[in-house]
Parts: sequence; structure tokens; C-alpha cells
Amino acid sequence: MAATSALMTRAFRVLPTARTARMHTAALGGLCQSHTRMAGIQRAARQSTCLPLPRSFRHRVSTRFLSQTASSPESTSLSNEARQELESKIKAKGDAIRAMKEDGVSKQDLAPHVAELLELKSQLDPLSSSSPAPTTTQKAKPDTKQTKSDTEESDYITSRSENYSKWYNDIIRVCDLAEPSPVRGCMVIKPWGMSIWDQIRNDLDARIKEHGAENAYFPLLIPKSFLSKEAEHVDGFAKECAVVTHHRLTVDTTEGPNKGGLIADPEAELEDPLIIRPTSETMIWNMFKKWIVSHRDLPLKVNQWANVMRWEMRTRPFLRTSEFLWQEGHTAHATAEGAIQDSKDMLDQYAELCRDLLAIPVIKGAKSPSERFAGAEETFTIEALMQNGWALQSGTSHFLGQSFGKAFDVTFQDAEGKQQDVWGTSWGVSTRLIGALIMTHSDDAGLVLPPRVAPVQVVVVPIPPKKNDEEGRIALNNALDTLVADLKGKGLKVKVDDRDYVRNGAKYFEWERKGVPLRIELGPRDVKGGVCVFKYRVGKEDKETVSLDEAATKAVDGLDELQGYLLEAAKERLAAGINLMATYEQMKEALEKDEASEYNGPGLYLVPWKCDATNEEKIKEECKATIRCYPTDVNEAGMWKGKKCFYSGEDATHMALFGRAF
Amino acid sequence: MAATSALMTRAFRVLPTARTARMHTAALGGLCQSHTRMAGIQRAARQSTCLPLPRSFRHRVSTRFLSQTASSPESTSLSNEARQELESKIKAKGDAIRAMKEDGVSKQDLAPHVAELLELKSQLDPLSSSSPAPTTTQKAKPDTKQTKSDTEESDYITSRSENYSKWYNDIIRVCDLAEPSPVRGCMVIKPWGMSIWDQIRNDLDARIKEHGAENAYFPLLIPKSFLSKEAEHVDGFAKECAVVTHHRLTVDTTEGPNKGGLIADPEAELEDPLIIRPTSETMIWNMFKKWIVSHRDLPLKVNQWANVMRWEMRTRPFLRTSEFLWQEGHTAHATAEGAIQDSKDMLDQYAELCRDLLAIPVIKGAKSPSERFAGAEETFTIEALMQNGWALQSGTSHFLGQSFGKAFDVTFQDAEGKQQDVWGTSWGVSTRLIGALIMTHSDDAGLVLPPRVAPVQVVVVPIPPKKNDEEGRIALNNALDTLVADLKGKGLKVKVDDRDYVRNGAKYFEWERKGVPLRIELGPRDVKGGVCVFKYRVGKEDKETVSLDEAATKAVDGLDELQGYLLEAAKERLAAGINLMATYEQMKEALEKDEASEYNGPGLYLVPWKCDATNEEKIKEECKATIRCYPTDVNEAGMWKGKKCFYSGEDATHMALFGRAF
Repeated sequence: MAATSALMTRAFRVLPTARTARMHTAALGGLCQSHTRMAGIQRAARQSTCLPLPRSFRHRVSTRFLSQTASSPESTSLSNEARQELESKIKAKGDAIRAMKEDGVSKQDLAPHVAELLELKSQLDPLSSSSPAPTTTQKAKPDTKQTKSDTEESDYITSRSENYSKWYNDIIRVCDLAEPSPVRGCMVIKPWGMSIWDQIRNDLDARIKEHGAENAYFPLLIPKSFLSKEAEHVDGFAKECAVVTHHRLTVDTTEGPNKGGLIADPEAELEDPLIIRPTSETMIWNMFKKWIVSHRDLPLKVNQWANVMRWEMRTRPFLRTSEFLWQEGHTAHATAEGAIQDSKDMLDQYAELCRDLLAIPVIKGAKSPSERFAGAEETFTIEALMQNGWALQSGTSHFLGQSFGKAFDVTFQDAEGKQQDVWGTSWGVSTRLIGALIMTHSDDAGLVLPPRVAPVQVVVVPIPPKKNDEEGRIALNNALDTLVADLKGKGLKVKVDDRDYVRNGAKYFEWERKGVPLRIELGPRDVKGGVCVFKYRVGKEDKETVSLDEAATKAVDGLDELQGYLLEAAKERLAAGINLMATYEQMKEALEKDEASEYNGPGLYLVPWKCDATNEEKIKEECKATIRCYPTDVNEAGMWKGKKCFYSGEDATHMALFGRAF
Repeated sequence: MAATSALMTRAFRVLPTARTARMHTAALGGLCQSHTRMAGIQRAARQSTCLPLPRSFRHRVSTRFLSQTASSPESTSLSNEARQELESKIKAKGDAIRAMKEDGVSKQDLAPHVAELLELKSQLDPLSSSSPAPTTTQKAKPDTKQTKSDTEESDYITSRSENYSKWYNDIIRVCDLAEPSPVRGCMVIKPWGMSIWDQIRNDLDARIKEHGAENAYFPLLIPKSFLSKEAEHVDGFAKECAVVTHHRLTVDTTEGPNKGGLIADPEAELEDPLIIRPTSETMIWNMFKKWIVSHRDLPLKVNQWANVMRWEMRTRPFLRTSEFLWQEGHTAHATAEGAIQDSKDMLDQYAELCRDLLAIPVIKGAKSPSERFAGAEETFTIEALMQNGWALQSGTSHFLGQSFGKAFDVTFQDAEGKQQDVWGTSWGVSTRLIGALIMTHSDDAGLVLPPRVAPVQVVVVPIPPKKNDEEGRIALNNALDTLVADLKGKGLKVKVDDRDYVRNGAKYFEWERKGVPLRIELGPRDVKGGVCVFKYRVGKEDKETVSLDEAATKAVDGLDELQGYLLEAAKERLAAGINLMATYEQMKEALEKDEASEYNGPGLYLVPWKCDATNEEKIKEECKATIRCYPTDVNEAGMWKGKKCFYSGEDATHMALFGRAF
């Protein structure tokens, strides 16, 4: 908290009232992040009876943090004349774009024109533009139908307030993160999205090695008999998985419409079908049996970066796809304590990864028994709060007890020479984290990326001098070269956008959408003055003129501040999004009709709870809410003690965090 | 050449006579590496009629480079008495090991005892030890039957001269690189092997980005109809592939032995089966169709790191497995020239990766038409020569022409507004490179790793002082900490082996086997003298006493030298392994009975050749030799001009490199 605050200069300012209020709050037992805990409990103290919070309050908090670049109110008041002129300009531009499309002009070439069109429209109706809606009219639905039919569907970003789910899909499509593939439920991860995953991978891989695990690689295919070995595991994973039954295609010679096409060769049927791994516990424990003999072989920790497959009926890009990329760590230990500690340590690593790289605050906790991984004695989780008030399980770590050790007959000889069963853990995070990233920071104008994970941290847009100004051109190029070298010298990831067929405004628009944290403009007049112009994606509203000599240093500092600002804003939102001391009826009323598409919904509920699978199931049926976790901090602090379960009225055994979840 | 020679100090010396001879050789047109070219042609000039080379010569060359740690001849002469004593010690040790095994002692705990046993045996019979066989008796088969039955099969490394194929498998097993899995044809890559692949990946990923390609990820599963779209491609890849036909398992309720087991759910059969990608051209060109509209979208270059699957009947770890890891790059271009240049540039990158990271010299060339990738107009390849004289195709880059562009209807609008078909390339290297690495450098004592790719570059073995010497213990620990910090400060990957339950000799033995390039011993007497002891895995026979102050600097220099030494030694072997101006009968005689298991076999044949698929097929039938490539350098230099085909006697069109291949 202190470290983050230190990053918050005047420029990147969080809501001062909230900060001041927090400082006056007594530190009670709380949630994972001390900051979150305090703010949450402070809110509870302040509003002990009227939960959930009035919507207006929550809006005030969140929109202040999430969209600081709202259009100025002036732009909405246009004279009739001006309006007519704008409308005819818009029509002309729209016609021109359609004509270009018919001529087969590329998306890239169209981009500047589409950008102009959107700019014109934003003058006419600020709500339909890419700028976030002003605070006061957050829930008003703009008339966007016309807008959408005029512009290219694929270039349009639905506003969050209109439909949060659609906004999410639009961001993924428009920012080139991923795309549906011809295989149902599987996506193509495009370079911009893949670069984010590669960053996550690099960062986490170092943490995993620090944790003492080594990378290995295990087969994609698993004999189906392996799944049956662990009784709970088979229930969890045998249901929806891809089954390989043949090892050859051949030409179809039977009469019929497919004649001459390819079929699975009946003569190449496998004796024992194989399944594509939904997770690799079974394969890995099969190998552990060979690798573990003595206590000196323990702990044994391996990790693999791999693709896995779970046949999903309803998919959402990054959040739930049939195939996804992840890492899965598997460890074996001589003692239960060793295994539990390992699974908790990795959960800490995941939480730190989210906080330090992705600027996502998470709540650490344990899953209720009915939400545990199939075969685990305890499942630890990190839960993040998305902007729409839904939770996203962002990483899990399982204490497997001796279940897989026994199922695969893995024993070791202890120091006294006795044979003992082995204890295990497994832990993983996936490309789902990219979904968490999008729904934590991004806004109606597009993606917002924390600098540490951005594929491009600084985009430099040189503004060319007039055609005949050869001297100016040389001066600009020299200044540009020096600037880029300085920025790269500081270790920044820099891109120069010198495309001569795209207008500056369109470039700005494009890189803002794609979430590049800092844009630097450099024109002939700037070069003469020895300066350049900084514009941050979020946080600072105004452009900033910076001396070229100091540009690299200022960029590093500014990006650091931005990283801190995004984390702080997300923490504020998490704190504001946790409802404390609600009654069950209050929660039910708020959650039962809540949809993923609703922006800024009711949020999460931290309540006293008596652990009971039947009641948990009833609540799920009644209001679609699930226990996201028993948050570690408040439970270890005994916050549930002396309280009654908010559902059964019996003595509470835990503090439970309920919510709707992706 | 000059750069490498600069690295060769007195300590790491290659055969002086060969170097001198090479310097006197005129530079003619030649093979990929100027060094290789000269040496090869010099050999040809020297021995224009008597090819292949007399075996004794080749032995002299290769064993000098590959095993510089041969046992001294004295160790073979034992008195009868001494021999009996040794034999009884061996028996006692063998009995003790068997007893420990029965008690379930771990492999790790057994290692020192096995090491002692092998040491004793090496005194009795130097040929059965892990030290390389002396030069003069290279082909003599030691009586190792008894040895093998006495020791743990899994800890024994067959000598290369006894059976090269078995040696290769032993290296992989004993050095913990990989292990067979329960799924036929699929292997588990263990941490030591995975770390090598991760190094290759990191190095190559940077090269690929430098080349202008971005990482992306495409689905594992491909609709079978996609395969049929490119006519040649379907022939190449539909034959042996894993077919997914169902998306669910269910409990078998039919009467029979499997009742209650799992079966593919008949109700979850896919309408259109999917195949696990054997390669991704079809999926990627299907996406390219959406992504490419205008000439401004070109060139488009993507790469993915992925697993692929080709159902193989006969597998060899790393060289040919059903599932393997690789990267596949795919590019689209506006012109044929652009595409051809791209595929050649990537081949250069692959060759540089092999040379600079793995110390493997390769021959660059083009495949003959019948050896091209299914769907390519031209396939470029890098071929490496393994120690047994067989070639290993180590990477390929394909110019696809417009085949996939047309098959997937990918067109672009050129600058004049005309629709044009798109040109393509694809290129890849795989975990096969680990096989190339093993069979280029390793010896009878185990793995030899070039420092740049070694998972551990320096292992430090502290030798503890006597039990009561507390002062000595503190001094040792201090010196150790400083030494390790110094080494790490130079960016070296260091491991300290301070296991107190393994004897020093066993540690040395273990890390030598695993190929760690440098071992540093540090004992109490060394600490007092302010020194430590260096021992390199290969190249320098003697231990070296080094001042602790200089240790880190000397280690960096020594490892650099070692890297250069390994490349130089491999280049010498490649030069010596290419037969020039052989007649077809000579080649046939040499190759038809050559086996992968035969160490130091006949090698490769560079011959004038008239390109002819029928003759190529006949040669393959007659002597199992294939055209590895038409080497680029000698063909561009027109070396075939005016020559007659060594098979048909007609005018030559190429210089072809024939050989047996994995």
C-alpha cells in the first residue's frame, strides 16, 4: 500500500476522499489485501444496514477511476446549423467508406477513414463515440443503432453500460487479441494477445523456478484407463473431453455423398482410445511412481507449459474455451504440511503475479468443499472482481492429500526405512488471465494495458514536415532516431508508427484502442523546440510537453506511475465492490437477476456462513450465486466467530464470499 | 573460421596436422561452411581415387576430437593377485548394491555405490568403464555382458563403438533427458532435456522476432476437410494422424469384460471428425484469408510454439516421436521473390542457431523434388552429420509457391487495384535438435553440452573439512559463497552440489555424465591457499588450479573456449565425414550395409548428379541412401558443371549430397 501510494504523484490521482476516509479507519481483520480489507470494512461500518450500496455511489466511485477522459460537456451543445453540417459530413464519409470497401480496400487502409467518421460522430453525439460516457449519464442508453449500422460492425466497440458482455467481445475482436476459429469452442490467439500471454509466461516461469519447480513436458494424450484411477477425478474430467479413436484417415470408398472424401480409417481403430489431456495429474503421477523411491527424492516439483482441452458447450474467449494454454505445476511431498505449504506458496506467487505484473488485486481464499478440484482435499483460489461486479476465478492451487499418490501407488521409503504414501499438490493459471486483464482495466475506448504487460509500451508518432522541407525532414529523423534509442536504452518496448498512408488522428485512435500506455508525438516544430509531446492512455487527461533530453527518463517514471495508478484504481473498485453484512434477501434480490452483460452490477457479498453443501446448492438455484471462496485473511482472523449464518441462522463456521462468476 | 580459431588457445587444441594441411589448401567452390568446404575438398584432392577413406584414418581424426580423456594404457596391466583382489571387491560391491536395492534405497542414494562399482570395474577392464576406449582399440568389442548384468541396466551407458543406437538411448535414459511414456510413441521430456529445449526456444524466439514474425496460437484440432484442400498436402499428412471422433466418455453398460469401464460415448460422436495438427498450414491459411486484403497487409509473418502429432510406427526419442514440440512459422508475401527470400533467410537463422548456440555445423541446401514438403515448391534444409556417419535433417524451410494461397482462396489487392494470389512459406525446427546435439558432441562417458545450452554451466563441489574443524567449515562456506556470487555475477548458471550423503567421486561422475561443462572443486586446503580446482568436461585433460579471485573470469573464458572447441571439433568431423568423388559402386558398397548402430560409419557422399526421381528411388532401394540435399554453396558455385552424373552417366545438373539418415 505504501509502495503504491509512493507512486501516486499529483498527476495520477485517486479519489482523495476515499483515501482520506481509509486512513481514518481502524485496521480490523480483513481480506487478502490490507488495503481492500480496510476499505471494505470501513464501508461496512459506515453503512451497516443499507446494503447493497446505492447504485449512484458505486457509479461515482468506479467511473471516476475507470474513465478519466470523459468528453467535456460543451461538445454536446451544437447549433442546428452545425448539426446539419456535421450530419452531411458524416453521410459523405460513410458513403466514401462503403465505396472503398466495395473496391476491396484493406482494413488497415480503411482505418483512418473509419476513425474520422467516428470522430465526426463523436462531435454529433458524444455517447456514441469511443470516449467514455460522462459520469452523470452513465446508465443512459445512447441511440447507437444507427451508429452501428453505419460503421463497420467489426470496428465498433459497444459501451460497457450498453452491454458489458458485448463490450468484452468487441474489445477482443477490435483490439486483435483473438478470433474465433473454424473449430467450435477453440480460438486463434492473435499476436497482440499472444504477446500478453508470453509476458505472463516469462514472468511466471521465473517465479515457478524460484519456487523450486523445473519445467518438463508430458504427453498430450492420456489412456482413458488413467482417468478412472482416481475416483473423484474421473467424475470431474471424463465427461467432456476429446477422444482419439483412430490413428489414420483414409479415402471413403462407400457409396454416398462423402465418397472420395476422408474418413477415419476403420482399420486404424485404437484398441484403447486416448483422450486429450484436460489436466495432467494422472499422467504425471504415473511417472512419479517411477521417479520417487526414497525421501531424498522429495519434494519433487515439476511444471509444464501446455495446451489442454475440456469440451465446453458455452464458450467465451479467454474465459472458457475448449482448448486453452496454461501452466500446470505438480509436486510430491513427504508430509501433508509440506504439500499444504507448497500449494499456499504458489497461491501467493499467483497473487503477486496478478498484483505486480497485471495490476489486478485478488482475494485469496479456499474453495468450499463442493467447489473443490476433482480429487483435491483443499482447493485454494485467487478471485478477481471484474468491472461488471462478477467474480473471475483467476488461478487455483490444490492440496491433493494422498489421493493421487494412493491411486497411482506412489510410495517412498522414509529416513527410518518405512514405506509411506506420498502427498501431492497441483496448481495452474491459464490464458484466462488475459480475460481478467481486459475486464479489470479497459474502458469504452478500448484496451487499457498496465505498462509491464503491454506488448508496446511507447508508440512514437512522427509528424512529417511539409513535402519540400528537406531540412526539416532530416532534423526530424535525427531527433526521432535519438529519441527511440534513448527509450530503448531504458529497456522500454517502443514502436515507431511512420506509416505514410495513415493520418495522425487515425494512428492515435488505433494505438489508444490497442491499449499502448504512452504515445509520444514528435513534429517539426517540436524538434525545433527540443521537445516532444506525451499522452498517456489513461490517468492524465492532458498532453504534456517534455524536453527531448528528458523524454526517456520521464517515460520510465510516467509508466511506473501509470502501473501504480491502475493497481490503485482496481483496488478501490474491489473495495467498493464487496458488500458486507447484507442479509440473504438483499443479496438474492441483487444477484438473481444480475447478468454478465450488466455493467457495474451488485458485486460480491462477504457474509457469515455455516459450511453446508445443501444450502450452497439451494442458493445457487435461488440466485445463481456461488461461494467464490472463504477468504483467507478474514477467516484466519476469526471474523466469523460469534456470528450466525446469513442463510441458515445457525452458528457460522466461515466468512464466505458469494457472487456471480464467469 | 577466423573467429573460431581465435578462441582456440593452447589448451583447447584441435589436431594440428589437419589445421596445417587445411591452410595449404586452395579455396575452391565448396560447402556451406568455408572451413568444411576447404577441408573436404582438400581431402578429395589428396585421395582422389581411394574413397571412402581408410577407416583407420577416420578413427584417428574423430577419436582425437571426441574423446580426449582416454584411460592410460597402464591401467590394463594388472598382476593376477591384484586382479583377484579387484574381482572380489567388485563382487562384494555388487552384492551390497543388490541388497540396497532390495531395501528400496533410492536411485540417488545408490548412485555413489554404483559409481564405485564402475570405478573398480574400470580398473579391471578399462573398456567397460565410462571412460572412452583408447584410440588403438576403438573397434574391439569389450566383453561387457558380465558388466551389464552386474550393474543396474538403467545406469549403464553402452559405448558408441559397441552399438551407437543403444549408446544414444542409454545417454537419453541415464542423463535424464527423456523417458518413454505409457502412450506409444510419445515421450516424457524430463527437466534436464526440457531445460535444453527452453534454451533453444529462447534463443530462436528472439531470432524469429528479429526476422519480423510475431507469435500467435492456432487450434490443436483441424477439421479433416481442411486437409483435403491442398492436393499434395493431404497425401503427405492424412495418412498417419490422430483422429478425434467423440467429445465425451461414458460408463460402458454393455455386458462384457469392460462393463463399468469408460468408453467413447456413442451419443457424443462428432459430425465431422477432427485431427490433431500434424502441421498447421491449413488452419493458418484459413485464417490468412480473413487477415489479408491489401498489399499493405503483406508480408504477414506469424510463428507458433506448439505440439504436433504424426502417428509414427517406429520411433526414436527426440528424433522421431508421435508427438513432438516445435515452432512453425508461416508467412504470406506479395511476390515469389519475397517468399523465397524469407524462406532462405529463416534457413540462415536456423544454421546460425545450430552453429552459435549448439555448436553444430550444418550443410544448407535444397531438397530434391521427391523429398520436398507436401505442398511446397522448394524445400530448404539444414543437414547435420552425426557421429555414426548418418545425416540428420535438423530444420526445414519451405517455399510454398501459391499452393496454399490458391487452395484457401487467399488474394490481395495490389497497388494497382488488381486481385493477386498470395505467395507463402513455412519453416520449423523441433525437439529433434536435442537429438542432433547429443549425437554431435557426447561421448562414452555421457552427455557433452556446449556451455551456451547447458542447463548448468558450472557445478561447484565443496569438499567438507573434517568433522570437528569448525573454523575450516566457516572458511569453506565463506569462500564458497563468494565464489558462487562471483560466478553468478558473470551471468553463469551455477549449481552447488553440497549433498552430504553422496561421495565426491560419485558427484564428479554424475555431473560429468550429465554434461556439465565445468566442475569446480573447493576443499579446505584450497581455501587456505586461496585457490580452487577447475575440471572441464572435455577438451582439457588436466585439472587446473585457479586463484579464487580470478575464478569467475577464468570460468567465463574457459567456457567460451570450450564452446569454440566443440564447434571446431564438430566441423573437423563434418569435413572428414564427407566423401568426394566416390563412384556409385563405392558408395553402394559402403552404405548398403551401414546401420545406425555402427559407430563412425562411411559418412556422406557429395557427387555430381542428374536430377531424376526414378534413379533417386532406385538408389534408395539399392543402398538405402537418400539425397540429403543439393548443397547451396557448391551448387551456386556451379561445381556440377561439365561433370557426369555418378549414377546415370548423363550430364550432371546438381551436386547432390547422399547419405543414410535418421
